[in-house]
Amino acid sequence: MKQSPRTLISVDLTKSARSQPVHHNRWHPDIPPVASVHPGEVFRVECVDCMGGQIGNNDSADDVLNVDLSQVHYLSGPIQVEGTEPGDYLEVEILEIQPLQGHEWGFSGIFDVKNGGGFLYDYFPRAAKAIWDFEGIYASSRHIPGVRFAGLVHPGVLATAPSQELLNKWNHRKADLLATDRDRVPALAYLPDEKGSFLGALENNPAVARRIAAEAARSAPPRENCDICPEDQRSGFQFMYWGQICLLEICIFPKGMFCGEIEMAGAITLKTKLIKGGMALHGNLRNPIFMPGPVEPRFSRYISFQGISVDEQGIQHHLDATLSYKHAVLNCIDYFKRFGYTGEQIYLLLSSCPCKGKVNAFVDVPNACCYISIPTEIFDFDVTPKDGGHVVKITTNCPDQAVTAKL
Amino acid sequence: MKQSPRTLISVDLTKSARSQPVHHNRWHPDIPPVASVHPGEVFRVECVDCMGGQIGNNDSADDVLNVDLSQVHYLSGPIQVEGTEPGDYLEVEILEIQPLQGHEWGFSGIFDVKNGGGFLYDYFPRAAKAIWDFEGIYASSRHIPGVRFAGLVHPGVLATAPSQELLNKWNHRKADLLATDRDRVPALAYLPDEKGSFLGALENNPAVARRIAAEAARSAPPRENCDICPEDQRSGFQFMYWGQICLLEICIFPKGMFCGEIEMAGAITLKTKLIKGGMALHGNLRNPIFMPGPVEPRFSRYISFQGISVDEQGIQHHLDATLSYKHAVLNCIDYFKRFGYTGEQIYLLLSSCPCKGKVNAFVDVPNACCYISIPTEIFDFDVTPKDGGHVVKITTNCPDQAVTAKL
Amino acid sequence: MKQSPRTLISVDLTKSARSQPVHHNRWHPDIPPVASVHPGEVFRVECVDCMGGQIGNNDSADDVLNVDLSQVHYLSGPIQVEGTEPGDYLEVEILEIQPLQGHEWGFSGIFDVKNGGGFLYDYFPRAAKAIWDFEGIYASSRHIPGVRFAGLVHPGVLATAPSQELLNKWNHRKADLLATDRDRVPALAYLPDEKGSFLGALENNPAVARRIAAEAARSAPPRENCDICPEDQRSGFQFMYWGQICLLEICIFPKGMFCGEIEMAGAITLKTKLIKGGMALHGNLRNPIFMPGPVEPRFSRYISFQGISVDEQGIQHHLDATLSYKHAVLNCIDYFKRFGYTGEQIYLLLSSCPCKGKVNAFVDVPNACCYISIPTEIFDFDVTPKDGGHVVKITTNCPDQAVTAKL
Amino acid sequence: MKQSPRTLISVDLTKSARSQPVHHNRWHPDIPPVASVHPGEVFRVECVDCMGGQIGNNDSADDVLNVDLSQVHYLSGPIQVEGTEPGDYLEVEILEIQPLQGHEWGFSGIFDVKNGGGFLYDYFPRAAKAIWDFEGIYASSRHIPGVRFAGLVHPGVLATAPSQELLNKWNHRKADLLATDRDRVPALAYLPDEKGSFLGALENNPAVARRIAAEAARSAPPRENCDICPEDQRSGFQFMYWGQICLLEICIFPKGMFCGEIEMAGAITLKTKLIKGGMALHGNLRNPIFMPGPVEPRFSRYISFQGISVDEQGIQHHLDATLSYKHAVLNCIDYFKRFGYTGEQIYLLLSSCPCKGKVNAFVDVPNACCYISIPTEIFDFDVTPKDGGHVVKITTNCPDQAVTAKL
Repeated sequence: MKQSPRTLISVDLTKSARSQPVHHNRWHPDIPPVASVHPGEVFRVECVDCMGGQIGNNDSADDVLNVDLSQVHYLSGPIQVEGTEPGDYLEVEILEIQPLQGHEWGFSGIFDVKNGGGFLYDYFPRAAKAIWDFEGIYASSRHIPGVRFAGLVHPGVLATAPSQELLNKWNHRKADLLATDRDRVPALAYLPDEKGSFLGALENNPAVARRIAAEAARSAPPRENCDICPEDQRSGFQFMYWGQICLLEICIFPKGMFCGEIEMAGAITLKTKLIKGGMALHGNLRNPIFMPGPVEPRFSRYISFQGISVDEQGIQHHLDATLSYKHAVLNCIDYFKRFGYTGEQIYLLLSSCPCKGKVNAFVDVPNACCYISIPTEIFDFDVTPKDGGHVVKITTNCPDQAVTAKL
Repeated sequence: MKQSPRTLISVDLTKSARSQPVHHNRWHPDIPPVASVHPGEVFRVECVDCMGGQIGNNDSADDVLNVDLSQVHYLSGPIQVEGTEPGDYLEVEILEIQPLQGHEWGFSGIFDVKNGGGFLYDYFPRAAKAIWDFEGIYASSRHIPGVRFAGLVHPGVLATAPSQELLNKWNHRKADLLATDRDRVPALAYLPDEKGSFLGALENNPAVARRIAAEAARSAPPRENCDICPEDQRSGFQFMYWGQICLLEICIFPKGMFCGEIEMAGAITLKTKLIKGGMALHGNLRNPIFMPGPVEPRFSRYISFQGISVDEQGIQHHLDATLSYKHAVLNCIDYFKRFGYTGEQIYLLLSSCPCKGKVNAFVDVPNACCYISIPTEIFDFDVTPKDGGHVVKITTNCPDQAVTAKL
Repeated sequence: MKQSPRTLISVDLTKSARSQPVHHNRWHPDIPPVASVHPGEVFRVECVDCMGGQIGNNDSADDVLNVDLSQVHYLSGPIQVEGTEPGDYLEVEILEIQPLQGHEWGFSGIFDVKNGGGFLYDYFPRAAKAIWDFEGIYASSRHIPGVRFAGLVHPGVLATAPSQELLNKWNHRKADLLATDRDRVPALAYLPDEKGSFLGALENNPAVARRIAAEAARSAPPRENCDICPEDQRSGFQFMYWGQICLLEICIFPKGMFCGEIEMAGAITLKTKLIKGGMALHGNLRNPIFMPGPVEPRFSRYISFQGISVDEQGIQHHLDATLSYKHAVLNCIDYFKRFGYTGEQIYLLLSSCPCKGKVNAFVDVPNACCYISIPTEIFDFDVTPKDGGHVVKITTNCPDQAVTAKL
Repeated sequence: MKQSPRTLISVDLTKSARSQPVHHNRWHPDIPPVASVHPGEVFRVECVDCMGGQIGNNDSADDVLNVDLSQVHYLSGPIQVEGTEPGDYLEVEILEIQPLQGHEWGFSGIFDVKNGGGFLYDYFPRAAKAIWDFEGIYASSRHIPGVRFAGLVHPGVLATAPSQELLNKWNHRKADLLATDRDRVPALAYLPDEKGSFLGALENNPAVARRIAAEAARSAPPRENCDICPEDQRSGFQFMYWGQICLLEICIFPKGMFCGEIEMAGAITLKTKLIKGGMALHGNLRNPIFMPGPVEPRFSRYISFQGISVDEQGIQHHLDATLSYKHAVLNCIDYFKRFGYTGEQIYLLLSSCPCKGKVNAFVDVPNACCYISIPTEIFDFDVTPKDGGHVVKITTNCPDQAVTAKL
């Protein structure tokens, strides 16, 4: 008879994230593990939301405006996988992700340009947020009427701790980038910073904690040690091994291509497997690989918006996929405004719903072509192109101030 | 009783593309239509391959090395849709795409760096090609053993002719880009050039043809008037109307994300619908939108490779999706080399097979995260990560010179 | 360089099926092959429709009322596969199916109860028919407004000829069944009958033809040697080998669960493979197995109707799946009448569209539970359950006499 | 801010099902509700397994051999939906189904022929069982090696209580069926029987309980008031309203076409909606309709086995779908024996895994054609037809007595 999965890490959502030493919010090889598993064991890990409870289930975006981003992400772990050595491949299989019972909600937000900003910061500079209520597998938002969907559930961050060598490389290359334009708002990158840092039990030893925080990396951007925002629900991940594994916060129902996703507290069930010496065997890849799992929502009808490498001033850029993608998104936002939505609502929706961002063509200079595809079935009215007479107007019941922050 | 679809344009593959005035290979509003349809009519258009027959069904890449790219793409048309006015939305529905009977093959290629190059020109500078044989819906290549798939059939270019105003805008912005680095190899963009130009019946009037060729745009990159490389087979397209519609060459089984696709001659069956005044109704989008059709190959298992905005020298770039995507592709190529493939073979395969390129995360500076996903089912052996003992080695029967060009 | 597929059998739709000796309409081991292939060869076979042209593209069901069913099916073949021996497994892979150019239409019909009847003959005793027009991959019918779909393309019959021993078995068991109720209308089964028989080139030898026709089996019902109406488009079939292979008529866009499908003339591209001694290897199965191919239309939303083993008089039967399925279908027909359709229209639609018939539960006596699921996306209006005020009424433009036959 | 779903009914798996008055195991309109909801409310209901704990997580099938089937199913409820009237349509939307934490396992079984038997009782007369362990969304069994899958999660029974009139109709028709063959083993149907009956709080009033039990229906077979074994996970059901709703036991990961499914204890999250007067609006259907939800496991490759209406003795039956389906299943079982499985293992697997049973053709007398399709991806080895040399043999680690009961 098999055992039920052991809950390795429990969290208490009624207490602050910083009072619970199962958390940390920096990458560093010297953060000690809080638990240990052997390969093949099924285990369960609870997580607070990535902001550690700074964002509330309410109708004001002021908390997004004022959020302390130096604290992200509150990660659960590190967890030691027994028998791992550098050069191994660690396969981490995601078996299930659930919200914590009694906390069936999440949020997506647009960061204020003065607080980091987002992908479209020049178009949407003000903080905004949408609360998503979960009814079983479905998410809907009182801030974005007319929409309901089963999301693409996945962990927000799932990673192994870096080696000291890899950490050093990160810090050097980031410093070099920052040096190219130190005055940019929002900043091009963020260096290690003790402010906001939380290192779990190490906080009892302030001297050590300060030393580590001064060189530890933030967990925000995807790097060699982790994946962020995978496509599909419940995926069998493959990781390169750089040190000990640490398992991290969960965000659920996301897609999160520019800023946000639906962040939530939750529990994840996992299993690991070792492929000894796997890095050399698999071609010394520089980034994790993954294989999506067999379960995901079915959508059969999409509407797709394209963009090319020409900017707002009509200036032609050379094979710039980021620019192409930005304009695909802007085209999409313009299209949905005809139904009565604000730009912020669609921007938040695109951060949350199961849409697909694609790199379509690098065939012919100078235009890269990207597009974004939205499943039409998530709307409860017809959003396909129609003659003017057939256009539904959404009556937005939520006042603007409920979504965007007071300035 | 309904009529069978009328074949508006026929081509003869035994004659040169330039001897058939149903073709042209430039965008210009003054190229006269060769046929006309009314909205709602189902019609069929035959097309030569985009290179106009320059690439042969053989085992040498020399024709790719020496291909005259100034001639691409040989488009069938223009076709006038009756009743269209500027500002209308023209919906073009793709009903079917087929190879021409007796010509069940296509090609994908890597352009030589001295002849335009491709997405990974710095890694794969030499010309290479793969011939794909079609057995019904399946494509396989004697140059890339171990692979067979049902492709994502779609037109390579499907567009409306630009207005004079739009054409002028293209030429200006391209000139500005070129001015930033005139000496780059390959070039950043290509200006209008009479060389290689073919304007159908206008060629009988050399003075007019020369005037038009001097300002006409090449059909290569995606722009406001067209889509290139849509995701799915048989899609219901939406187009903005800029002038008269011209319908273009077909490439089949493509995905073609960096260089190539599977180019072929073929026939396409279409139907159009007008939404009068549709541009203003739909938010004055700057690019076409489209809706994928209901039929496409099913693949349920993928292996996905990621990349981040760090270059080969370890230098950190800022949210550079193009760079991230390039490294996702390079990781993928490195991975498949362990099975005995050459880099060129995988590069050609990724240009041709139903893989998916995704813009995954623009969440957190400085790393954009992109990935490329390959369906594992197109291989006739197991390509998932395994211990060393289980790795199959492909025996490549084709000598290297069959794929890459002699230099 | 690979060869284009050879067209093994051509048909001429302007001539009668009976004047073309590439056809036959009976199963018998002594019918000589008209062509031969070797395993691995890709080849193309043209076929007339199963009725041999008796049903016209018009608005009267009189031809269905009077159709001579003793002539079905006009099969193309037999085709000899070289190297086959009894006990081998013959894999026949379907590579492509197309209508013949210029004949882009098909039909589905309800046979009159006096002429064989159909699954629901007691509810729909009169002949009826619907003509389906093909626009590329889509089928629509002027006799069933409001519906369009990409169908599940497949051959109607694809079989190997029986051995003499197997043929004898068929004839004996059929005679035994008939003996249980000789007076039933429609008949329980049909014995060999010279009437309507056509044996290709053997017709030049009347004595032999008469002998064979007197014991040959009709091709109508599925038996050990063939599959009829497989689920999916383009499937890789496996067949047991009973004699020589004969390849047969094509019906396209079918589902055809009770009577009809969309029958059409067409061309099929095939490839065969031998597994020597495969029958013993695979467990001496009594029926063919098959594996659906990778391409089929995507539908993501269905509405499903159930039935149980209770008949119209409220009488309980024991685990009778046929009865359960009949009532699932009747429930479905009743439901769609609220939109203005006639029962015949929905019955014809269910015979043609990509719906799914399922055997759901044999768990608990006495009720088997079956259901039929219809994709909601094939309708151009909302067919999900709604309050009365929201119900769309289809305006049927076709008079009743256009669909059902004059009596 | 939305409320978290209320848990309407809690169960205690450490106590007997019969000691918890939230359960009952019979259909009768006079069983009083144990809770009440209003339309639109999201609520959660816990359930014991259908057998009420009689089957253990162990390696002996003796408990299946001796199981008291007069006790099935232990249903949670009834639950009153406020505002319902006869003739309304009650839509019950399934939002989520989960196993109870700490009880991540289920079972499937073959009933002994002396204890009810199953679909193939004449082939597999002995009791057998398989225990399925759940690792997140995946099920695997130590009794059927080589298999793992994400199942099609659904409630086993979800129904409304019958009216007295409907109940009377059931009892009459069942009695009539039984009268046709009273001596059959297993019995054709089961009449109301006080033995095993459990009526919740009514058990405190033995006189009333006895009166009701004497006429109450068992919940086993699907009838007008309920659905059993729907195809897909998380479906939006429609129900006709016959009295008060009662919500019932859950079985998870099932398909359960002949005997079994994977039965488990679990929790279900639901929401209801009323369509007033909906029965007349929707055509007075005799059975519930349902619409599958958007989430289900993806499988893209199937192997399918057919059967026709010819029995083991070679006797031809007339359009008998039950017989056809039985032989499709027997063909499938024979096929998989070549890999080393026993018949019981495959029979149990087909009762549990996401296979599809289809009614394929009722076109042509006398043979109905059914088939069963198995996703090949649930096996961890290649199960497609191959030459003899390639056949993998499963080493069954479980002794036969672990699966089938001692007799």
